[in-house]
Amino acid sequence: MIKKGRQLYEGKAKIVYEYKGDPNLVIQFFKDDATAFDGVKKGKIGNKGIINNSISTRLFRLLGEHGIATHFVDKISERDMLVKLVQIIPIEMIVRNIVAGSLSKRFGWDEGIVLKRPIVEVYYKSDPLHDPMLNDEHVMALELATEDELAYLRKTAREINEILCAFLEERDLVLVDMKLEFGKDAEGNILLADEISPDTCRYWDKKTGEKLDKDRFRRDLGKVEESYEEVYRRIFLESSR
Amino acid sequence: MIKKGRQLYEGKAKIVYEYKGDPNLVIQFFKDDATAFDGVKKGKIGNKGIINNSISTRLFRLLGEHGIATHFVDKISERDMLVKLVQIIPIEMIVRNIVAGSLSKRFGWDEGIVLKRPIVEVYYKSDPLHDPMLNDEHVMALELATEDELAYLRKTAREINEILCAFLEERDLVLVDMKLEFGKDAEGNILLADEISPDTCRYWDKKTGEKLDKDRFRRDLGKVEESYEEVYRRIFLESSR
Repeated sequence: MIKKGRQLYEGKAKIVYEYKGDPNLVIQFFKDDATAFDGVKKGKIGNKGIINNSISTRLFRLLGEHGIATHFVDKISERDMLVKLVQIIPIEMIVRNIVAGSLSKRFGWDEGIVLKRPIVEVYYKSDPLHDPMLNDEHVMALELATEDELAYLRKTAREINEILCAFLEERDLVLVDMKLEFGKDAEGNILLADEISPDTCRYWDKKTGEKLDKDRFRRDLGKVEESYEEVYRRIFLESSR
Repeated sequence: MIKKGRQLYEGKAKIVYEYKGDPNLVIQFFKDDATAFDGVKKGKIGNKGIINNSISTRLFRLLGEHGIATHFVDKISERDMLVKLVQIIPIEMIVRNIVAGSLSKRFGWDEGIVLKRPIVEVYYKSDPLHDPMLNDEHVMALELATEDELAYLRKTAREINEILCAFLEERDLVLVDMKLEFGKDAEGNILLADEISPDTCRYWDKKTGEKLDKDRFRRDLGKVEESYEEVYRRIFLESSR
């Protein structure tokens, strides 16, 4: 039986509930709601919540095995994940291996160009300001993180990227880019939080380059549910090596 | 007699000519033309070229006395400055002491807030891309500067800011923010280039906060020429200490 307490927060893709039994834990409930373009485009992707909970669970476990501190505790139902209570650091760390999306627009680079070295970008998680990009000095001026914390976030984001790239590559998935969020627990430890799913990452088929992520929803490419299911299938059922 | 050769390049506010007599030098001719908002707004500011040549000359000399390497050689006429030939690094270094302009918009901060520590921002000097902001990893990926070069640019930008702030403050001018451009000479030395004027800096009156720079043109505040002249007057004629 899930000891779900009152709702603490509702985001675009998840709802956070109290966990009765341990005040240091909360429940993340994964919705099917999908949004894009700063919330302008809204919709639902069938079974997305179930799929993203499963995929995130698998990837958080993988990262944990590699020594990355995450908020993940357990998957407690189809759509519910038990996680450590953290104060989210209002920064989005974007790691890019291949040019896509806003990086393509910013520099006029074609989507698909492989970067010589992954690029890490920092964005301010702020709906009213439309998530502006930050440089390190902005992070300090906004007092979002200390210099040491930012260095840790950047280093950890790169490590996570390496671990996930290797894991996904064995499943014929290319990790194009991803968004990571971190939070601080009661003791001040920085933990990877949020989710890691086709909502927050771009996955392309290694052979065909076919997009298997939220861009299918954003750009009306069709086969949205099927693509999320395909990522699920590959992560759970397949390893080519 | 000015040994002006053929025109090499025409920018928005200056024309660069060959200098007959030394292939390592060129002439910067200061125009009255003014543009704003990515070239959308165009106009002229009477005597701007004369004033900006004089102000830039004074400030380049001041920086030179403080050990900053600049492209400045000599002021050779009302509107002509003899400078070292450099390959411009396509980066704009913005130093901000007080919130104004795009920083105000980016973070929803009121203009006039004094930053605890000056913020340095890096923009890609690219008209087709509309000068996007860069983080350090973008600079590397675009191969605009090496890590050491970027560290030098940032350190030098901060030093220049300190020197200019002190000088201008004695003249009751607050240096709100400024744009700096650098170039490399034939030997690979990095030199401060371009100009330092009310076109490229925001100057506010220390007592009244009145804007005495290109914002008067951008924002149709009136007294455009008079403000440029006022900055000229204070820089050349006044020192309150």
